[in-house]
Amino acid sequence: MSAPTIGCDTRLELRALSGVPLVAEGTDLADLVADGLARDGITLRTGDVVVLASKVVSRAEGRYVDLTTVVPSGEATRLAAELGKDPRMVELVLRETVEVSRTGPGVLIVKNRLGVVCANAGIDVTNSRPLDARAGSGPWALLLPEAPDRSADRLRQALASRFDAAVGVVITDSVGRPFRFGTVGIAIGVSGLPPLWDQRGAFDLFGTRLEQTITALADQVAAAADLVAGQAAERRGIVHVRGLSFPVVESGASALVRPVNEDLYARAVEPGARS
Amino acid sequence: MSAPTIGCDTRLELRALSGVPLVAEGTDLADLVADGLARDGITLRTGDVVVLASKVVSRAEGRYVDLTTVVPSGEATRLAAELGKDPRMVELVLRETVEVSRTGPGVLIVKNRLGVVCANAGIDVTNSRPLDARAGSGPWALLLPEAPDRSADRLRQALASRFDAAVGVVITDSVGRPFRFGTVGIAIGVSGLPPLWDQRGAFDLFGTRLEQTITALADQVAAAADLVAGQAAERRGIVHVRGLSFPVVESGASALVRPVNEDLYARAVEPGARS
Repeated sequence: MSAPTIGCDTRLELRALSGVPLVAEGTDLADLVADGLARDGITLRTGDVVVLASKVVSRAEGRYVDLTTVVPSGEATRLAAELGKDPRMVELVLRETVEVSRTGPGVLIVKNRLGVVCANAGIDVTNSRPLDARAGSGPWALLLPEAPDRSADRLRQALASRFDAAVGVVITDSVGRPFRFGTVGIAIGVSGLPPLWDQRGAFDLFGTRLEQTITALADQVAAAADLVAGQAAERRGIVHVRGLSFPVVESGASALVRPVNEDLYARAVEPGARS
Repeated sequence: MSAPTIGCDTRLELRALSGVPLVAEGTDLADLVADGLARDGITLRTGDVVVLASKVVSRAEGRYVDLTTVVPSGEATRLAAELGKDPRMVELVLRETVEVSRTGPGVLIVKNRLGVVCANAGIDVTNSRPLDARAGSGPWALLLPEAPDRSADRLRQALASRFDAAVGVVITDSVGRPFRFGTVGIAIGVSGLPPLWDQRGAFDLFGTRLEQTITALADQVAAAADLVAGQAAERRGIVHVRGLSFPVVESGASALVRPVNEDLYARAVEPGARS
């Protein structure tokens, strides 16, 4: 049996698993997903993808930080004053940062250690409180998962063996973008599913070869799942996707990160602004 | 009856309409969509969204250009030589351009007259040949629809009255992005559906107010539909989406375009690079 090529059925179905509890530190993600699927009567099949909001994974991994325990550095204090932000939050952001990308009043956009360019390094202050937090503790922040590709990998392998199916796992975050208003879901952890769908070499209906077409498959899966998951509550943080087909590959969301030297927007000024 | 708030059911279904013909100039888009829906046994309901690849709309609107008829300006000739591109194509791109954003070998990224920052102003050279083109004519290029918000509006109103349902219409294009590899679908024309989903003021599970959460609803619908539509063939260029709910609003994809003065990436250099 040859490996399936990447594709999508004419029908794609996304479903937010119902009854997902607010996740506690130490929760086994494979149990959490399998229980949710069982509640909704879904048996994973080859080609299915399970999409988790990063928040679910971070909570299970215990990535909580009590902001009152954070001591801001001089740099964080200075930057916080300049931007009008909480210096403890800025300190946390800088710890997760490879490079500051852009700043503005109340805005701190960085490239984080995962290579993702986003506000506040992806650190969140909603749904960020541990279930067993002492009364009066916090406010709490929630860091992104330590190594989302690895988390996705572990979960994918557990699900694949439980269901005897070649499935994919995507861990998502919601980020802002240059040029356009509004956040979109992107993939910060990927396993099984190819992150990119290279359609170069295919032909159009007139026989012209497609030259430039590499689709950000995992980012589009993340954006679609983000529609269903919403933002306000973690309770929709697990989405089941059916309709894709793909070969199981060894890759990860890091394949979606454009290196600085291949990114025209990383440093260069636009031509018109060059003196 | 009060207008529905924006939301998504726990289940979202996308379906590429089958048997969509290769579109000829002058095709009535409402007929095209209604015929496709009928073939697949779908009756539009309130909350449904019909997503069209821009190519379908451009072909119906006759936005074909025979490149052999294009006379490049001096600027186009110079830029084409610098970038190693076809001067006739560069001429077409510049005619659709408000501002050149970034250039590189073989790469010409501009802000087009719709405010969309993308390669080649969104002009395509695949599936770009008119059905009635003379043998030996071309190569052909296909411009984006003249006014995609207006095209979406017209189609939405025709569908709404045919099906007596409050539906949305999204016209999409696939674009590259700073920082990340791979193209994603975005909305270049929107009608009915709110382009942005403002979730500020909602609360998380601990009662913390969401401060920064405005989702690019129409762009995420476009990305999801792009998964199903694929790139190689126009034959999947119409996607039916069911599971969203929204009030019908007077807006458009132009609401997704961030004005230059609110865009930290439009002109500024990153802080580290400032001398």
